[in-house]
Amino acid sequence: MSLQDINNPKMKDLSFINEIKSMAVIGTSEKRNFFFLRNHYQTFKGPVYAINPSVRQIPNFPQENIYASIKDVPGDVDFAFITVPNSRVLNVIDDCVEKGVRLVSIFTAEFSDAGTEEGIELERELLRRANNKLRILGPNGMGLFYPKVGIQWRDKFPTEAGNVGFVAQSGGICNIAIYTAKEMGFHFSKVFSFGNGADLDVIDLISFLEEDPETNIILCYLEGVKKGRGKLLRKVFANTTKPIAILKGGRSNKGAIAAKTHTASISGNLRIWESIFNQTNIMEVNSLEQLLNLANLIDCYGLKKLENAAVFSISGGYGVVLVDLLQQVGINIPDFSPEVQEMLEKQFFIKGTSSKNPIDVAAQLFQGDSIQKIIEIALNDEKVDFLLMDLPSYYFDPQYFFSPDTNFRKMMIETLCLGQKYGKPLIPILQRTHTPDVRREIAQILAKVKVPIFGDPLEVIPLLPIISRYARKRG
Amino acid sequence: MSLQDINNPKMKDLSFINEIKSMAVIGTSEKRNFFFLRNHYQTFKGPVYAINPSVRQIPNFPQENIYASIKDVPGDVDFAFITVPNSRVLNVIDDCVEKGVRLVSIFTAEFSDAGTEEGIELERELLRRANNKLRILGPNGMGLFYPKVGIQWRDKFPTEAGNVGFVAQSGGICNIAIYTAKEMGFHFSKVFSFGNGADLDVIDLISFLEEDPETNIILCYLEGVKKGRGKLLRKVFANTTKPIAILKGGRSNKGAIAAKTHTASISGNLRIWESIFNQTNIMEVNSLEQLLNLANLIDCYGLKKLENAAVFSISGGYGVVLVDLLQQVGINIPDFSPEVQEMLEKQFFIKGTSSKNPIDVAAQLFQGDSIQKIIEIALNDEKVDFLLMDLPSYYFDPQYFFSPDTNFRKMMIETLCLGQKYGKPLIPILQRTHTPDVRREIAQILAKVKVPIFGDPLEVIPLLPIISRYARKRG
Repeated sequence: MSLQDINNPKMKDLSFINEIKSMAVIGTSEKRNFFFLRNHYQTFKGPVYAINPSVRQIPNFPQENIYASIKDVPGDVDFAFITVPNSRVLNVIDDCVEKGVRLVSIFTAEFSDAGTEEGIELERELLRRANNKLRILGPNGMGLFYPKVGIQWRDKFPTEAGNVGFVAQSGGICNIAIYTAKEMGFHFSKVFSFGNGADLDVIDLISFLEEDPETNIILCYLEGVKKGRGKLLRKVFANTTKPIAILKGGRSNKGAIAAKTHTASISGNLRIWESIFNQTNIMEVNSLEQLLNLANLIDCYGLKKLENAAVFSISGGYGVVLVDLLQQVGINIPDFSPEVQEMLEKQFFIKGTSSKNPIDVAAQLFQGDSIQKIIEIALNDEKVDFLLMDLPSYYFDPQYFFSPDTNFRKMMIETLCLGQKYGKPLIPILQRTHTPDVRREIAQILAKVKVPIFGDPLEVIPLLPIISRYARKRG
Repeated sequence: MSLQDINNPKMKDLSFINEIKSMAVIGTSEKRNFFFLRNHYQTFKGPVYAINPSVRQIPNFPQENIYASIKDVPGDVDFAFITVPNSRVLNVIDDCVEKGVRLVSIFTAEFSDAGTEEGIELERELLRRANNKLRILGPNGMGLFYPKVGIQWRDKFPTEAGNVGFVAQSGGICNIAIYTAKEMGFHFSKVFSFGNGADLDVIDLISFLEEDPETNIILCYLEGVKKGRGKLLRKVFANTTKPIAILKGGRSNKGAIAAKTHTASISGNLRIWESIFNQTNIMEVNSLEQLLNLANLIDCYGLKKLENAAVFSISGGYGVVLVDLLQQVGINIPDFSPEVQEMLEKQFFIKGTSSKNPIDVAAQLFQGDSIQKIIEIALNDEKVDFLLMDLPSYYFDPQYFFSPDTNFRKMMIETLCLGQKYGKPLIPILQRTHTPDVRREIAQILAKVKVPIFGDPLEVIPLLPIISRYARKRG
């Protein structure tokens, strides 16, 4: 009998996750300096209980919240993070069932991931003991990051909640994603690292996020699904109403072998996966960075067709390269409409510039007032779906002008927000030059008003046709 | 008669550039706060003269170095930066010829770039006046950046000299390249922004860099060459002994039109360019960022075949993605040699890791001592040409460990230098997470010892086959 057959109700109701009000860390110990307890205690918006029969005191943690067993806790416990040795996990699960815990994350490893018959049997027994009375994330995973209520397996996770959900087996991938999104400036509703996926797997979790009112965009790093679950995954993908973007690990033959070592996942035939992605409206990317950049773009500007670009450049040469890269992925650079072209021409008064698409403002950048107007006019041409522009970050340092210009920064930040103002994507590339602090400052200001910043055209241009394809298919 | 016919000796000797000892800025004015004069005066290692008949005093500039005409300067002037109105350029050139100036940069625009018959004729006249007695960069260009002697058209250019030469028409592209290279950590020998290329063009300048003992790697942003010069360019490319990497602007049809607007360049038939790149051993890239990342890689590790990768990952999932991306560009992930595999296995003592290629150290990262050994063994497998690894920068912050580990940083920096130690590329990807300051600090330490750092696998993986192809063709 397979693991999934033991424990596979048609629908696993996970809606209670949004109601978690109390939690415990079971097995917290001094050896790791109470790592997981400390992390959760910092942020969790409700009582956190430390469960360990051999711990009497924990520095900077309330004495009255330490218990030998979860059964001794007087009030309810909705969620438990379990990090006991694997020989003790079954007893802990029994206790959790008895206590009425709804969800557990099992960090402990050496279940089916060990690749031994004992490990596989231990995982089976886990499901029998849980008996559908509680739901399990893991074992061998980091479980749940839920910033709204402060569930966080690590320190320094962002405390702000967003509307992007993420599902991955690997805790490492989740860590990188969470810390990178923090830097990019978008936020997660919930992140699930489900490890071996003994109970909850990618299908359950995507289905939950589909229904979750706190989630609008779903991201997934997927190595494979367990045997017999492929059809259901296809069904979930076919019926999704929210945008789903997937990074499929194990697409190459060596990658598939590595995925099997990593999470015992069967990567499956690449052509089967491609047929699933083609038949459904799933967005597929090639790297974790692309997955996160795509989420950032969608989070900022939604999902509109991006088939016709206006290009705005400070350097004529850089503008030529942007045009080449856009055309390479099938994006048009239309001539502006005649009346728009006429309006644009009136804004140009310095030689060596070009008011045609791609626009080249060259040294006119130093005469800031006209720049905002030029971008506004070009963006609003009905022939244009979005505007892509380059802007080296050093221009935000007023010392880089012939004469220091303290007004440029304010004007340019306003200008970069025009995409939000007019509901048409304005996508700035602030190259990663020698002024990273200035660049970061501007990026953080813009992230707050949902303007995504990129550093390299190849970070963003390959993502644009993926969004267009989604928008076309959705109709 | 074409511009080039007027002034096209078989070989333009530019070797005197390395002997420039004195310079003038002609036309420096208060209007731009003596911008170009100030920039050069900050760094130039020799006398700088300010030439302007209507300027008597310049703040923080020696009174005795201000002259009405370059002819009044008592000593030699080897190089002049010209920024007078274009009606005065011809007289200034006459003066420079009389004075014996060897090289001038003409920043002034509205010559052939204006697209008018007058502009074209003015540019022709320029060449007649110069009469091969001095060489011209420009007009409509930024000229020369030569950090070794302190020639710099802008402020805050890096003062350190390296061995990478760069040739481009566009000054904007040069600025971005110079400031980005500063951040990446490699340095230029000389950068030429040659604008309209009335006299010196891409062929002359690449030929000079070919012979220049200060230059080992040549980069070029090229929109096109003037009519009749294509054959010579092909010859230069065919006979090069130094690595040349090119970003060709105007490969798309709209890009070609934009290039024509930008520098009046004829981008030419893409297939002709591709045949040139195929028949010669020129490395071609798609973006300025790729051009610079490629230069950084070559500057650090030279040009060796990179066909077989060892992959080292902190997160099994990230490692799977790296393998997929490498295989996608035709790079093998070989099994380690049996004796290497045996040595590696002895270094692993934590469950959830994998000693096979791709290596997944997972939580063993927290036990730093073994990591250095693992990378050393894998890198030295004769079946491996290079090692690619991911390493989120937050691990360099000791607070991110279960228990603070102050030794990790020192150990890991040493480890990242193993590529230099063994003469085999070790390529780290330090993801751009929320700890940019830590990341930058590490990147700067490593740049000093020529270890290149990337932030995204797609920044570097597509460059590896370009290097391999070069190495194979060179034989």
